[in-house]
Amino acid sequence: MPTLILLRHGQSQWNLEDKFTGWVDVDLTPQGEVEAAKGGALIKAAGLAIDTCFTSVLTRAIRTSWLALWGAGQTFVPEIKDWRLNERHYGGLTGLNKTETAAKHGADQVKIWRRSYDIPPPEMAPDSAFDFSRDRRYAGAVLPRTESLKTTLERVQPYWEGEIAPRLAAGQTVLVAAHGNSLRAIVKLLFAVADDAIVGVEIPTGNPLVVELDRALKPTAARYLDADRAQALPSLG
Amino acid sequence: MPTLILLRHGQSQWNLEDKFTGWVDVDLTPQGEVEAAKGGALIKAAGLAIDTCFTSVLTRAIRTSWLALWGAGQTFVPEIKDWRLNERHYGGLTGLNKTETAAKHGADQVKIWRRSYDIPPPEMAPDSAFDFSRDRRYAGAVLPRTESLKTTLERVQPYWEGEIAPRLAAGQTVLVAAHGNSLRAIVKLLFAVADDAIVGVEIPTGNPLVVELDRALKPTAARYLDADRAQALPSLG
Repeated sequence: MPTLILLRHGQSQWNLEDKFTGWVDVDLTPQGEVEAAKGGALIKAAGLAIDTCFTSVLTRAIRTSWLALWGAGQTFVPEIKDWRLNERHYGGLTGLNKTETAAKHGADQVKIWRRSYDIPPPEMAPDSAFDFSRDRRYAGAVLPRTESLKTTLERVQPYWEGEIAPRLAAGQTVLVAAHGNSLRAIVKLLFAVADDAIVGVEIPTGNPLVVELDRALKPTAARYLDADRAQALPSLG
Repeated sequence: MPTLILLRHGQSQWNLEDKFTGWVDVDLTPQGEVEAAKGGALIKAAGLAIDTCFTSVLTRAIRTSWLALWGAGQTFVPEIKDWRLNERHYGGLTGLNKTETAAKHGADQVKIWRRSYDIPPPEMAPDSAFDFSRDRRYAGAVLPRTESLKTTLERVQPYWEGEIAPRLAAGQTVLVAAHGNSLRAIVKLLFAVADDAIVGVEIPTGNPLVVELDRALKPTAARYLDADRAQALPSLG
């Protein structure tokens, strides 16, 4: 039966520096590397045989997929990287320190940007040092200049439906190594989570979330492989 | 113009143990990891922008590709893994210690198996502990039970022509992270090296060999990025 494994990347350099990261290509810290390899070891211990691995085009998720496949003893699994699995684009907040931003705009405003479903931060300025439009990994793509969780989902959904769901429907076991918000989008789609509830769904880092699905891709069971670090899951409905 | 980068994986566990490895999926040593990342740093320093990365389905080559892409700051490059880029299959010698094998069969016989172009070692026994036919990474493939360099080339060639050469013909820069003998096969094909000369071509580990090609995929220039560890190259003809 179809099995989906969701794995959120672990600690990155900018987690340490308390900055809004979004699409900036910061690397994992050594702790983040250990989290990824441990996630892979849990996949191995659970006896899961991955058929296809999806990840974003950001180094912290890609290296999480690599370290997880290695930890799982399954380096040979085909990998597919796509920007539509990227973290939410943080627009004009990208690269700013979170504490400083709260001091400037007010904690309430920052909370709205971070925790509302459909209110995006201001757009990234065209002359931003973080402008991604000339980065060759996005050649040919129409890129957002900011995203809410809602618009993040709107670019994850066609990729999910076009590339990931068909492999699951064929009975594959699929690993998606990605980011807090692109994984939230997938969880919202799979579990039909309400708009105002999805921002409360927190997927722990480095802890594989295994979702078993029926042939119609409706979840029939879901569990974290590290039960000691599990978070509440949406209802199976 | 088309650019091909050939990168041979570095030290593996069985290099240390002096064993015939072939298709056994041994991992890199820490030294092998460092070699791969340094290879990537050389690619970055040379200003090469990789479009596609090919590797085998063996961990030591896959991790070399990962570490090289990371060292090159190009983790996002699409990767394709295929068994036809695997190391030569060492048949019945697989897993044997080289010194012990020489003591048993004679050093001259072992030299023939290792250094002739078209004489394969004995076939792997059907009940070998190393039998690869039930390994899921080879599902659906018709596998050899032993290989000479000639038969290695005979399975590399259709893959080269079908998958790698078309990307080069489209003007891409392609990285192939693989093994001593699958890379020898590619060098023989590209440079039209004679049968009795190719076994003398030794590609150093972790040292990217950059081959510039014309539109007909004829080599116009070739260089190792670490000039201090270069080996002689075939004539450009």
